Amino acid sequence: MPDTTLNDRPMTAHATQRRRFIRDSALAALAAGALAACRKGEAATNAVATKPTIPTPTPPAPLSPREKADAMDRMHEAGIKAFPAKTAGKGNQLLTPRMDGGVKVYELTASEIKWEISPGNFVKAMAYNGQVPGPQIRVREGDRVRVVLTNKLEESTAIHFHGLELPMDQDGVPFITQPPIKPGDTYTYEFTVPVGNAGSHMYHSHHNAAKQVGTGMLGAFIVESRSPRPIEKVDHDYVFILNDGVHGYTFNGKGFPATEPLVAMLGEKIRIRFMNEGMMIHPMHLHGMHMTVIDKDGWPQPAPWKCDTLNVAPGERWDVIVDCRNPGTWAFHCHMLPHAESDHGMYGMVTALVVQK
Amino acid sequence: MPDTTLNDRPMTAHATQRRRFIRDSALAALAAGALAACRKGEAATNAVATKPTIPTPTPPAPLSPREKADAMDRMHEAGIKAFPAKTAGKGNQLLTPRMDGGVKVYELTASEIKWEISPGNFVKAMAYNGQVPGPQIRVREGDRVRVVLTNKLEESTAIHFHGLELPMDQDGVPFITQPPIKPGDTYTYEFTVPVGNAGSHMYHSHHNAAKQVGTGMLGAFIVESRSPRPIEKVDHDYVFILNDGVHGYTFNGKGFPATEPLVAMLGEKIRIRFMNEGMMIHPMHLHGMHMTVIDKDGWPQPAPWKCDTLNVAPGERWDVIVDCRNPGTWAFHCHMLPHAESDHGMYGMVTALVVQK
Amino acid sequence: MPDTTLNDRPMTAHATQRRRFIRDSALAALAAGALAACRKGEAATNAVATKPTIPTPTPPAPLSPREKADAMDRMHEAGIKAFPAKTAGKGNQLLTPRMDGGVKVYELTASEIKWEISPGNFVKAMAYNGQVPGPQIRVREGDRVRVVLTNKLEESTAIHFHGLELPMDQDGVPFITQPPIKPGDTYTYEFTVPVGNAGSHMYHSHHNAAKQVGTGMLGAFIVESRSPRPIEKVDHDYVFILNDGVHGYTFNGKGFPATEPLVAMLGEKIRIRFMNEGMMIHPMHLHGMHMTVIDKDGWPQPAPWKCDTLNVAPGERWDVIVDCRNPGTWAFHCHMLPHAESDHGMYGMVTALVVQK
Repeated sequence: MPDTTLNDRPMTAHATQRRRFIRDSALAALAAGALAACRKGEAATNAVATKPTIPTPTPPAPLSPREKADAMDRMHEAGIKAFPAKTAGKGNQLLTPRMDGGVKVYELTASEIKWEISPGNFVKAMAYNGQVPGPQIRVREGDRVRVVLTNKLEESTAIHFHGLELPMDQDGVPFITQPPIKPGDTYTYEFTVPVGNAGSHMYHSHHNAAKQVGTGMLGAFIVESRSPRPIEKVDHDYVFILNDGVHGYTFNGKGFPATEPLVAMLGEKIRIRFMNEGMMIHPMHLHGMHMTVIDKDGWPQPAPWKCDTLNVAPGERWDVIVDCRNPGTWAFHCHMLPHAESDHGMYGMVTALVVQK
Repeated sequence: MPDTTLNDRPMTAHATQRRRFIRDSALAALAAGALAACRKGEAATNAVATKPTIPTPTPPAPLSPREKADAMDRMHEAGIKAFPAKTAGKGNQLLTPRMDGGVKVYELTASEIKWEISPGNFVKAMAYNGQVPGPQIRVREGDRVRVVLTNKLEESTAIHFHGLELPMDQDGVPFITQPPIKPGDTYTYEFTVPVGNAGSHMYHSHHNAAKQVGTGMLGAFIVESRSPRPIEKVDHDYVFILNDGVHGYTFNGKGFPATEPLVAMLGEKIRIRFMNEGMMIHPMHLHGMHMTVIDKDGWPQPAPWKCDTLNVAPGERWDVIVDCRNPGTWAFHCHMLPHAESDHGMYGMVTALVVQK
Repeated sequence: MPDTTLNDRPMTAHATQRRRFIRDSALAALAAGALAACRKGEAATNAVATKPTIPTPTPPAPLSPREKADAMDRMHEAGIKAFPAKTAGKGNQLLTPRMDGGVKVYELTASEIKWEISPGNFVKAMAYNGQVPGPQIRVREGDRVRVVLTNKLEESTAIHFHGLELPMDQDGVPFITQPPIKPGDTYTYEFTVPVGNAGSHMYHSHHNAAKQVGTGMLGAFIVESRSPRPIEKVDHDYVFILNDGVHGYTFNGKGFPATEPLVAMLGEKIRIRFMNEGMMIHPMHLHGMHMTVIDKDGWPQPAPWKCDTLNVAPGERWDVIVDCRNPGTWAFHCHMLPHAESDHGMYGMVTALVVQK
């Protein structure tokens, strides 16, 4: 029952991710270790052998505390120096619709792919259009939208538009609102985005979803308001999707050091749309500046409020504004520390907000 | 130390719950599987045997991807078609008090019972009046209340009235506010419900509570306000208690497909009182309509706010209003997806809000 | 890789903590058990031995349900009677700065120590100034502050001032904002606490932090406001730091029954500054009185709001006011019940608010 074990043993994948990162970043550390090992390690080769003997290897001298600290620090440094590391594939790319009369048509293909989470760490993913997260869909209140899904997976699927208040037959729950979309089949959703339903929403599988969403079948569905509030006027608009399944701890489908930094110029304002598609809660902590929370699940909070650590639960979306008044490179990570760092350095749910002068 | 393992291995029970559900729902799938297995399975019976031979069994033809998808989908369909499945026993039944002068008297008996979580899945439960959750107690601010508990368990117990601001000797913490109530004994609580303490509260064991609450010793204690706010005027008032111990993931003591749907007519307003008596946090997601959050732990929020996914932590109560303006059958589930679905279909923390035209 | 297992097996330490508590509190229970065991246990000693025989031990009579309940209750009672238990060491002690001109100078030394979590339960800790949590630093908005850290650990470290909006070179992230502070080295931070950045903040390691913070390298960094709001005028100001690593479930570095009670006189107001430095979320439940939430991460909420169970996630700080109008000893605990109680009694994340007449 391999599908079940996917969900029952998420730590296995994290361990793999960490091992691969460690392997990659260990090169710098190796030199030092080898030096220490060589210091006394070859005395045996100077002995005069009168008959065949089995040489007794001399153990390497133990590392001093300082040497051990240096070795650990080199692993930490290697990770940070590698950031932002290049990997194949980029998720959450804006998808331009084809227009059919007044209808915005989005074509999605679901298929199984290999996805590079962090350098050299390839995993099996279920993906829309070959991306994890799937392509970003961005529409306006009142738009007529058609989403055409072709299922090239080996199992059935369906799309739920999470946060949108649609007619029931567009809700994407197999056997309740539609039949499952079988392998090889194409299925069409079409609806008008309700006026009054603006905000940060999501689309994702609602069939065998613990596996399908956990391995990549998810994306942002942003509904722009017809009458944005003044606080929404920002210079950059970032989508920030959390996941934590067999792919390890990821932001927008990548783990540190392959996560993408958020970038702004000093004095700019950015909006961050947190979305959690995982199965754990992640308290997101920003260094150097606070976040002003404006929306929950696309709905305005009664009044904006400030924090530096925002608890984001599965299925939730939280929109925040950051006024980038503190120049620098600011760590931005899940504060469940084992999701962000091991003794081999930072990994998983870590990125940075870079405020440039 | 069996009590400890109850808490240390919650997954075991979930696995059992899933296996039973799978066994029950596998009937539909069996036919298809058997058909495939028969296609080439009996070639050996046609061989002419000249002397005793050990027949080599021919393996069944592997299922095609489409056949595998169909088999999986049949399991999903079976679960949904079974909903709402009948099981023995119903928790959270309104308990009518006996009046003694001006005092509302509630009689509770704690005992160990068998409880049917989902069809055929019977578990050991500790229960008040043979129900999980225990019977609903519903009073008004200022009422004089007497709760008489008879302990027919094989261990001691005590009741904590969670959220009520009572005199210390009614607080239910053994060795701090009272002696434990021994097996066979009867104990009486009596207090006036404070005016100003309206809202969604709970009663539950506060002795060996990780086990006793985890296996059923909990119930809703609703205090109606003397002066309800206009927003509290609703057509239906639902109590929605989450639990996640050895009984698996449950709503009001039942796992999908035996969970009870919430039902409303189009245009009606409902109030949902979420209460978490488990040991995990559950983000509750409603499809099709948003929820308006009005109260936390019985206290009004400074202003109502909207969401579609509400994070409910152990010990918390959250009251929400849903304006049922979207007709249909709307999935309503924990968005920690492994609490709601496996590759064998939905189970555990899943129900539906049905809005009828 | 011993450091990793620290994070991978937190339950091991909890089990140890529980076993030690059980051992300590089992004395009262032993008498009863021994009595039962003696009732029939020595018949063999009366037999007349004619030749060497292997005596067949007679099993002790099984305990009756009532005797079992009594034995369990004695363990629960022993824990409560021991509260607040004495242990060596006290964390979170206010650190008086040395003045250097207008600069408040705080000297911290990081070293590995033995720390007594609960009576007899000693663990390895990494600590600032030999305390877990580290000493409390308390300054005012606009203060000039110098923190001088001497690293006597066997690994590198760095301090992040969590919640303070400092220049990047004071942010404490090795290889991004500073080099790691090597074993034996001393490093100096110096900054002006921004005006407008008052509230409950923290300082903690940001290097190998899952281990270093998990084993004690954390403390409160309180910034007092120049213009406190009326609601902040309280009689007592408590810091309440949660942790849950290999040290088990702790409040201010101690597990029940060694946790420290909060004490107030009837009619007094107290402020509680919850800070979570662990890797799990803890919903904190107060009996007998509600809490009024005023600040999140040091920032005022738009309006105060009330609750009795407050969900505190890692990295978060929540400030609440309790108006102590209900006299008594009120249980105060994490409502993830397995963090607070086993069948051997309360342990871990339990303390009490004592309101004295």
